[in-house]
Amino acid sequence: MEKLSIKNQVCALAKHRTLKEAMMEISTNISNTVQAIDDRQVDQLVELLVNGLKSNRRIFVVGAGRSGLVVRAFAMRLMHLGFEVFVVGETITPAVTKKDILIAISGSGITKLVVESSRIAKKDVDATLVVITSYPDSPLAQLADLVVEIRGRTKITEQNDYIQRQIKGEHFPLTPLGTLFESTVLAFLDGLIAELMEKTGKGEKELKERHAIIE
Amino acid sequence: MEKLSIKNQVCALAKHRTLKEAMMEISTNISNTVQAIDDRQVDQLVELLVNGLKSNRRIFVVGAGRSGLVVRAFAMRLMHLGFEVFVVGETITPAVTKKDILIAISGSGITKLVVESSRIAKKDVDATLVVITSYPDSPLAQLADLVVEIRGRTKITEQNDYIQRQIKGEHFPLTPLGTLFESTVLAFLDGLIAELMEKTGKGEKELKERHAIIE
Amino acid sequence: MEKLSIKNQVCALAKHRTLKEAMMEISTNISNTVQAIDDRQVDQLVELLVNGLKSNRRIFVVGAGRSGLVVRAFAMRLMHLGFEVFVVGETITPAVTKKDILIAISGSGITKLVVESSRIAKKDVDATLVVITSYPDSPLAQLADLVVEIRGRTKITEQNDYIQRQIKGEHFPLTPLGTLFESTVLAFLDGLIAELMEKTGKGEKELKERHAIIE
Amino acid sequence: MEKLSIKNQVCALAKHRTLKEAMMEISTNISNTVQAIDDRQVDQLVELLVNGLKSNRRIFVVGAGRSGLVVRAFAMRLMHLGFEVFVVGETITPAVTKKDILIAISGSGITKLVVESSRIAKKDVDATLVVITSYPDSPLAQLADLVVEIRGRTKITEQNDYIQRQIKGEHFPLTPLGTLFESTVLAFLDGLIAELMEKTGKGEKELKERHAIIE
Repeated sequence: MEKLSIKNQVCALAKHRTLKEAMMEISTNISNTVQAIDDRQVDQLVELLVNGLKSNRRIFVVGAGRSGLVVRAFAMRLMHLGFEVFVVGETITPAVTKKDILIAISGSGITKLVVESSRIAKKDVDATLVVITSYPDSPLAQLADLVVEIRGRTKITEQNDYIQRQIKGEHFPLTPLGTLFESTVLAFLDGLIAELMEKTGKGEKELKERHAIIE
Repeated sequence: MEKLSIKNQVCALAKHRTLKEAMMEISTNISNTVQAIDDRQVDQLVELLVNGLKSNRRIFVVGAGRSGLVVRAFAMRLMHLGFEVFVVGETITPAVTKKDILIAISGSGITKLVVESSRIAKKDVDATLVVITSYPDSPLAQLADLVVEIRGRTKITEQNDYIQRQIKGEHFPLTPLGTLFESTVLAFLDGLIAELMEKTGKGEKELKERHAIIE
Repeated sequence: MEKLSIKNQVCALAKHRTLKEAMMEISTNISNTVQAIDDRQVDQLVELLVNGLKSNRRIFVVGAGRSGLVVRAFAMRLMHLGFEVFVVGETITPAVTKKDILIAISGSGITKLVVESSRIAKKDVDATLVVITSYPDSPLAQLADLVVEIRGRTKITEQNDYIQRQIKGEHFPLTPLGTLFESTVLAFLDGLIAELMEKTGKGEKELKERHAIIE
Repeated sequence: MEKLSIKNQVCALAKHRTLKEAMMEISTNISNTVQAIDDRQVDQLVELLVNGLKSNRRIFVVGAGRSGLVVRAFAMRLMHLGFEVFVVGETITPAVTKKDILIAISGSGITKLVVESSRIAKKDVDATLVVITSYPDSPLAQLADLVVEIRGRTKITEQNDYIQRQIKGEHFPLTPLGTLFESTVLAFLDGLIAELMEKTGKGEKELKERHAIIE
């Protein structure tokens, strides 16, 4: 499938240019991330989850703010796939144990309650800790058994963004704060679900069967 | 910015092909949506929100499952922008009134509790109802004052997907259930936030000031 | 059973009289409810839950507003006891099936989203429906396989309250809206947990083992 | 103040004795707490909230597990009363500032994420911190500007309970873990709402007007 360059695509679109440029920036960050993925990190994550499903290891997920919403969207699909999965902070989440896997998401890797939650899971019960972050040297990542690096708005893109938009006489970032990280992690985790479906032989029909009907 | 075609991009990527193809499908659906946006629908939505902020109209949001998570991610940014915004079902959500705006998200437009919530808001108090859906003829859309159509996996893409993957001897969709709709709506709403920042003159600094610090 | 009048109990307490009278009203409604409990309703509920635990039936709970918080407090303890339990509307709640039990709480029995949720569970999949309400003739109760009646502020207590406080020259109810129902149901469900602990032979130690540690 | 012994009250109640004794224990702890309330602590809390409403101070609440549910039930009523109130961890909760009041609930006063949240609010922005706990010497209480002590199951009641039930040949506590604290705090906070209604001149009608209608 051929595609126009972003510039060509939006230059003709006089109306809602900012909205459309922001969407293109998100779309591009997702496709760029495909190139940048560290296959060995994903190898380990897929293996951990596929083996985890076989041996009934439970998955716990934790995140704050919009990262917390993204990790819930992932948890929902893991449940559809047949995993026993819990969201830290929700009502029926039990005690995490050594046998469990905690997946923590934080772009910066310094979100206090996420770091503290991960520390409890790691230090107190020695659960397996997976961290998804833009900063593999962050305090959160340093606790992890496995780090998956997903780039959001890096310092460089931030600078470029600033310069480019200064040139155009603008000073609003298209994707403020953690936006790029959050939408890209959501796409990555949805990609992971596709791979898990394939690896575990579960089709859409089986997902649908577990999908909540009271909603 | 130039870009390789999706096919070229992924053909060389032997490992985790399914994960990467799924991410590219998401990225592509977002960029395709940029082309397909109905500018007049967005005109009305932007006007409603910009005027709403000026005249202190409150925003309520509602969605179920993953659409509910997406609408919360949007609500969080609206709060960062200075809107008074509430999520239906959360603790401190007050009575909706005629002066308020309810934004309801449902890909299918038939999610029962979302339709019922929208019906209460529309029929009982005559709030302004905005519906974001793939189906402008759905029961939910028919209640709305303003419909914004965002395509997820249409019947056609579903068929294409099925045929293409049958040819390859596969039978797992890359983006099961509402995945494409949900990730594309998230990107659309983040684009909308960018435009609202511009229109209301609020920069990233102001967003940061309202961003939760206990997390 | 004899009891001191509320008035006597608090007459010596000059400061924060309203606060203390309200607390006494709540305390009294709980102890009055002990007398009013329909043993056969509780027989059936206990049997359903004890047998449910043995045969791995899952429990779903639903409620709106403060009743929703009360039903979550109950769900948490059921989880501590070893039940597989889910809260309607939370992230990892799967499809309810015929084998499952749904416990719905609504003082009035007319809360729309609770009625609609119960209708889906009952009509679409024929799950077992338990309703806890003050109104055994309400639309919600009429859907139920088992109704447990818990009195909140009845019309009579409302009238008495009004008259008594009119005499004193006041016009604020001590326990507005559903307060009495909610606090009494919480106490009833905690009583039920005590009986379930006894019946299933689970002590506090076992509850503690499942109690969330990331909090 | 005289009171019938719990034993006398329930002796005639053969069926579901454990359930009923547990409910009586909860009822009794609430009425005992009325006697034990430290009026000066409540003076300060009422003054803080009444003045806070006048000067538009925002209230933030935080709690984990069942204490988190209790604090939400309180937040809901504060909203009904016209307060601007937020629950830490919910979607639209903004940055806490020096002008705001944080109310934290923890029976033990050592719940990690609650202590950490309170520390951020106190140390980073110097918000006013109210702590409701059974342990006025706990790490959480030590951060507070105002401590309200509410007794749950104390070491002594725990011992008594244990001995009494040992004598009867039983070994299950009627009110495991934080049950007594949680139900008593709920009753206390509902009493506080009654006093706030009186002090601010808001009747049930005004509460009802703000009560969520989409539910």
